[in-house]
Amino acid sequence: MTAPPDPTPRQAALTRVTAYRAGVVEGRDDRLAGEEPMAIRARGPGQAPVDVAVTMRTPGHEAELAVGFLRTEGLLDDATGISDITFSPPGNAAQPDDQVTVHLDRPFDATRVAERHFVATASCGICGKASIDEVEVRCDPIPDGPFVAPDVLLGLPGSLRDAQAVFAATGGLHAAGLFDPRGTLLALREDVGRHNALDKLIGSQVLAAALPLHERIVLVSGRASFELVQKAAVAGVPILAAVSAPSDLAVEAAMRLGLTLIGFLRGDGFNVYARPDRVTVELG
Amino acid sequence: MTAPPDPTPRQAALTRVTAYRAGVVEGRDDRLAGEEPMAIRARGPGQAPVDVAVTMRTPGHEAELAVGFLRTEGLLDDATGISDITFSPPGNAAQPDDQVTVHLDRPFDATRVAERHFVATASCGICGKASIDEVEVRCDPIPDGPFVAPDVLLGLPGSLRDAQAVFAATGGLHAAGLFDPRGTLLALREDVGRHNALDKLIGSQVLAAALPLHERIVLVSGRASFELVQKAAVAGVPILAAVSAPSDLAVEAAMRLGLTLIGFLRGDGFNVYARPDRVTVELG
Repeated sequence: MTAPPDPTPRQAALTRVTAYRAGVVEGRDDRLAGEEPMAIRARGPGQAPVDVAVTMRTPGHEAELAVGFLRTEGLLDDATGISDITFSPPGNAAQPDDQVTVHLDRPFDATRVAERHFVATASCGICGKASIDEVEVRCDPIPDGPFVAPDVLLGLPGSLRDAQAVFAATGGLHAAGLFDPRGTLLALREDVGRHNALDKLIGSQVLAAALPLHERIVLVSGRASFELVQKAAVAGVPILAAVSAPSDLAVEAAMRLGLTLIGFLRGDGFNVYARPDRVTVELG
Repeated sequence: MTAPPDPTPRQAALTRVTAYRAGVVEGRDDRLAGEEPMAIRARGPGQAPVDVAVTMRTPGHEAELAVGFLRTEGLLDDATGISDITFSPPGNAAQPDDQVTVHLDRPFDATRVAERHFVATASCGICGKASIDEVEVRCDPIPDGPFVAPDVLLGLPGSLRDAQAVFAATGGLHAAGLFDPRGTLLALREDVGRHNALDKLIGSQVLAAALPLHERIVLVSGRASFELVQKAAVAGVPILAAVSAPSDLAVEAAMRLGLTLIGFLRGDGFNVYARPDRVTVELG
């Protein structure tokens, strides 16, 4: 199924600020990125909805966010069909999209919601290794390709910035962009939360039945955390690039899961932290 | 009680990267910010520990993070004493600090953990207003002062940067700094997660019995989300400044809770989004 149209356009709000600049004070209008809580619920046929999570997100692309979150957190697999996506509470016109329920064509296992947060408890310790192990079991192997030239990578941040409509206005949003191996921007999602931006992007591809994303590059505007690598790996993305730094666990996860992880992609350079073989540099 | 010494120094890891810069490729060493999951648990006298949350954090200041999180999320109040803070699993030398248990001198209400995530459900909708309402009930009023001059505010980012030891090495950490009204840096905490950096900072003050922080300014290195405003308000901080943009809900919360919220604090200027009366500008 395709995503329903977004119910609200509350992506940016106008506010009045007191601006101080080089000793001069003036009142002026400023645009702010929207931030609102959204509850994600899932249910199987005949089941009561199960509360899965509440996330602080920028309004817009609610269905994609719910589906992307469920998919990248391992609570939804590609074999499970989505029969409907509903917004509630019904009749509350002021807040029509604060609770999104994803209706599945097979039973939803509520116990996995609790497990998601407490995967490894006292028996083995909670550690980064256990987190990577847990992601590994729900990732299919990522193919060796595609192969991209450095110039293609260097062009991605500019394409993302050019397309960032809301960011330009508020300065307050993270972005995630989906590119083909030639560097063409295919989709862009923005959010106050960087996880949400990526979940929306991947959710859009789940709804388009485009997973696994084996021929795609994803660029995120901020840093690369473990959770972003996890989400990209579950979606089958072979190349994840970030404008800023990765964490050590993000690098370890990318190595184990076979992702090419690029950081500090800006200006005329970048660093490759894992699987540099997908970057085709001609050594002269 | 004071915080136990930090059990591990895994704040930054060395890695080998393939660096591409202006057409030149070279292998070199790079430092990465540490990222590891940590479980936070709480228990009253004679109670079994209650799992509260798992957060992805940078190792270091584990006791402060656990206490700061419990306090700013409303799961611990100033009337409740902390009798001990323990790290587990015991005997696991490789991961000694992945599970932190805060022992309280009165019973811990486990039902509040679940409520924290599902405050407002189908009956009223989940919305930003409900989130602010919920924070408001656990915030004492914030006094009208202190009053700070623009030059003091303009000096904060430089002080924070100068003190950011790990950030300088990895480029991957958020920082939260605590200042007095003259702009003197009193404490600094860093983390891959910006919420964690603020929780560690506030946790250090909880352990020093310094709450409410009515004579303090807090500066965060990134954006100002609703949750950062919430955490600052619960700790009684009257002035919260951010290097980047606030969200609309952050501004709304600051207005309702009486915080001065400053954004885009960089170079020779800043914007005041709420309660500008604490910034003392001499109009000439």
